Amino acid sequence: MLDRIRIVLVNTSHPGNIGATARAMKNMGLSDLCLVEPKLFPHRDADARASGADDILAGARIFASLEEALADCQLVVGTSARERHIPWPLVNPRELGAVSAQLLTSEAGAGSRIAVLFGREASGLTNDELHLCHQHVHIPTNPDFSSLNVAAAVQVISYEMRMALVEDQADEVPQWGTRWDIELADNAELEQMFTHLEETLVEIDFLDPSNPRQLMPRLRRLIQRAVPDKVEVNILRGILRKVGLYAGTKSR
Amino acid sequence: MLDRIRIVLVNTSHPGNIGATARAMKNMGLSDLCLVEPKLFPHRDADARASGADDILAGARIFASLEEALADCQLVVGTSARERHIPWPLVNPRELGAVSAQLLTSEAGAGSRIAVLFGREASGLTNDELHLCHQHVHIPTNPDFSSLNVAAAVQVISYEMRMALVEDQADEVPQWGTRWDIELADNAELEQMFTHLEETLVEIDFLDPSNPRQLMPRLRRLIQRAVPDKVEVNILRGILRKVGLYAGTKSR
Repeated sequence: MLDRIRIVLVNTSHPGNIGATARAMKNMGLSDLCLVEPKLFPHRDADARASGADDILAGARIFASLEEALADCQLVVGTSARERHIPWPLVNPRELGAVSAQLLTSEAGAGSRIAVLFGREASGLTNDELHLCHQHVHIPTNPDFSSLNVAAAVQVISYEMRMALVEDQADEVPQWGTRWDIELADNAELEQMFTHLEETLVEIDFLDPSNPRQLMPRLRRLIQRAVPDKVEVNILRGILRKVGLYAGTKSR
Repeated sequence: MLDRIRIVLVNTSHPGNIGATARAMKNMGLSDLCLVEPKLFPHRDADARASGADDILAGARIFASLEEALADCQLVVGTSARERHIPWPLVNPRELGAVSAQLLTSEAGAGSRIAVLFGREASGLTNDELHLCHQHVHIPTNPDFSSLNVAAAVQVISYEMRMALVEDQADEVPQWGTRWDIELADNAELEQMFTHLEETLVEIDFLDPSNPRQLMPRLRRLIQRAVPDKVEVNILRGILRKVGLYAGTKSR
């Protein structure tokens, strides 16, 4: 579905930014690049910054007017600073990703295209250009330094499109033990290890059984927090066995 | 809180990327930039691409080793491609934002710092560098064209940090490091503990320095996953000291 997201650069001055845009798009799996009156293109600076996204540059279409670049798109979204004279429907990049996913996966949206417009390096999109858009998207920035590089803005938008349309990870919560390579230790293995640990700590005089304080709870909390796998528990037990050998040597 | 997110660029080749990183950081409200052995810095290409983020460049600190750059950080996260020989706790940028917000707003995390490491343009971070990290973060990419420009990667991570810490739009929070009662250990304390652990394991003949295999990475991964606090690190060092006494006894 990412092939139905079009990136439209309007009146770009620096060809390096076009190359960096191509790279950012390809990194995120986008491919449809349209250029409206670029100042210099093709250009070696574009090729250099594309770093291998040559196919995106080669496939880029050049238009004399924004309207032509948007003619076959169903949803048009312009990147914008927050404050506008006439407020327009405004989303952030994450919301744009959600809106896009909703449109492209809907029955009515099958086959539809979404265009995201990026303006000039110095001045962005004009009011007239912004009025061509269904919605505006604002990338949250430091209010004291809000002007993003155009390719950096494309990177953020493309990243959110990928997150929404491909990764489907937005609501996934990291939990230790998921995406793991080794089977997790079961509770019996863990408890045997803690028993072994406690015995060893007594043996080396680190833990005083008559005054254990909070030592074992603290060690349990530390190790359990990591949700150990079977190999890790085996390593810990191997260490404890070795320590036991040394402690035994001394006491004899 | 964004001032407690440190961006660490390791061994960057192109000064333009350092400048673009400074701009991306400032756009998102970050300010703490550390450079570990940059090839060329300061440099006019860095100034040009910073586009006004001169204060970030001027304030960038240069370190001869990664460990020094991380010494006062409580959470260290390395950017990584997905597949690793030993999988490490892996989050995506959105999850990293959520984890960071949770840590920095917790009582135990008050005053703590988070470092995010970005590797070389051509080869990323080494395995040793990745093993210094509590977690890895993977930016989802097109598998056929997965190498992000380093400043573009900084842009995505910084954007998610801003979304999580300023915009308050990441309402889903992972269960990790919640409401901690003790100050977290900093990286220098952790590294001293790991050095002590490694020495002790050699001393008790559990670790063969001529054939270390994956023992230390596995132990690091286990302990770092738990993000230990200062008391826990002190307990572990206390145990190691005791074990050292016994090991010394035997060898005499």
